[in-house]
Amino acid sequence: MPSAMVLKGPSEVREACDAARARGLTVGFVPTMGALHEGHLALTREAKRRASFVVCSIFVNPTQFGPNEDLARYPRDLAGDVAKLEGVDVVFAPEPEAMYVPGERTRVRVDDLTAHLCGPHRPGHFEGVTTVVAKLFAIVGSSVAVFGKKDFQQLAVVRRMARDLFFPVEVVGHPIVREPDGLAMSSRNAYLSPGERERALGLSRGLGAAARAFAGGERRAGALRRLALAAVEPIATSIDYVTVADPDAIAPLPDDATAPERVLLAVACRVGGTRLIDNVVLGEDPPPGA
Amino acid sequence: MPSAMVLKGPSEVREACDAARARGLTVGFVPTMGALHEGHLALTREAKRRASFVVCSIFVNPTQFGPNEDLARYPRDLAGDVAKLEGVDVVFAPEPEAMYVPGERTRVRVDDLTAHLCGPHRPGHFEGVTTVVAKLFAIVGSSVAVFGKKDFQQLAVVRRMARDLFFPVEVVGHPIVREPDGLAMSSRNAYLSPGERERALGLSRGLGAAARAFAGGERRAGALRRLALAAVEPIATSIDYVTVADPDAIAPLPDDATAPERVLLAVACRVGGTRLIDNVVLGEDPPPGA
Repeated sequence: MPSAMVLKGPSEVREACDAARARGLTVGFVPTMGALHEGHLALTREAKRRASFVVCSIFVNPTQFGPNEDLARYPRDLAGDVAKLEGVDVVFAPEPEAMYVPGERTRVRVDDLTAHLCGPHRPGHFEGVTTVVAKLFAIVGSSVAVFGKKDFQQLAVVRRMARDLFFPVEVVGHPIVREPDGLAMSSRNAYLSPGERERALGLSRGLGAAARAFAGGERRAGALRRLALAAVEPIATSIDYVTVADPDAIAPLPDDATAPERVLLAVACRVGGTRLIDNVVLGEDPPPGA
Repeated sequence: MPSAMVLKGPSEVREACDAARARGLTVGFVPTMGALHEGHLALTREAKRRASFVVCSIFVNPTQFGPNEDLARYPRDLAGDVAKLEGVDVVFAPEPEAMYVPGERTRVRVDDLTAHLCGPHRPGHFEGVTTVVAKLFAIVGSSVAVFGKKDFQQLAVVRRMARDLFFPVEVVGHPIVREPDGLAMSSRNAYLSPGERERALGLSRGLGAAARAFAGGERRAGALRRLALAAVEPIATSIDYVTVADPDAIAPLPDDATAPERVLLAVACRVGGTRLIDNVVLGEDPPPGA
């Protein structure tokens, strides 16, 4: 199988996509930060199912990392990543200076949807995400873009941004890909020590317990939240949030609310020094966990 | 001459532009707020020179008006505007709800270039401009977009935004079109009483005096600024700024600076209740004024 063509320049990628469309192909797009795992590969397969020409970007976007976050140590292995990809026509691997040219001053943000969950814990994060994704969407052009649901809030934010700015891009969410024992796949799982890896199962186990209660009829938001919290609290070094929220507005429900028939339960916490997130859409996703 | 096709829907405009490009045409784009005058018509003629299919948008963008500004009374006459246009293939005249769909939450901003001149006097104005222009650029697609230099800061901000977000749009500035006596054409000139119309000449006269001094060798920023100010002060109801600035960074020069060989001199003031702006790029533009 021919390996993907690796391009560094935004204009080269635009030309490749324009040429593909001119040949009657449709473009599928998977934006990533590299350190590819089976979750990413599932996104590229989904893109291949939905389009005939697939572009995967690999770019560790500096503007979505806070000053105390892991930008410097984020795993980078372009050659290894490219070797893993199948069915991808173009890998777009720009240098930071190509995406943020000297003198650049433009930022794209989405209000309200970024006010809760990860937003307050990662100031500037979503603005960095929407800014770089807007750039990528403008470069790739008309396409189907596939994002993982592990970053559920990111998916909602990017989808709103694409709609609001009239990008000719269909934003598709792909179900979370989990390890056999239930842990949501993440490039950051590589940071975990063996003991932390075991403790990290608390996230999916907590979500699974809440999902089974929901399936059994539990609709009290506080009860669902506390079921997840009970599994996360013992294993977390610190907890950013365990929240029941409207999955479209990304707006938290108070504990005394009755959950609707489709509701998001989302967790962010640290296990050791590693920040992990996971979520389930109750009423839609199967219960996570082994 | 066939009159332009008037379209209300973003997707209709995208389809018309895609179809034009598929026929081998190039798209020229002139975004306006309507109340068209000879200055706007010069922009559409420039677009026609540079492209074979011309789109003119007419949209009084609510997000670029402050709460105490003239959104409600801004002149609107779509039929009259369409009748004035020649050589325009599509007029895009959306309703506000089409450009800002319910639940929209996305904003685009350009930092630094908006920190001076009109920025501090019109909080939120440039964010409204860049947000709506980003939407328009995404709808129209690959194109040459023509903006007037009367809104010099806006031109610089939009050009930076288009470059930073990789829109496939060439942003072109068109020289200010003036009345025979020197007044820069503006839709807001219609607000002026006959006496205010006469006083309004102070702007172009002040810029002209400074431009003649610059041509004669004057390079002291303060001296150039004061020449403009001397003509504006007697006629202005209030002055927002009279500023010498770097034309690329839109960064003011202090009075004790030596002006470079190409430098912006810009004025914003009220004459009666009407806010007027004007500018000249010294070393580049001919001296304004009769």
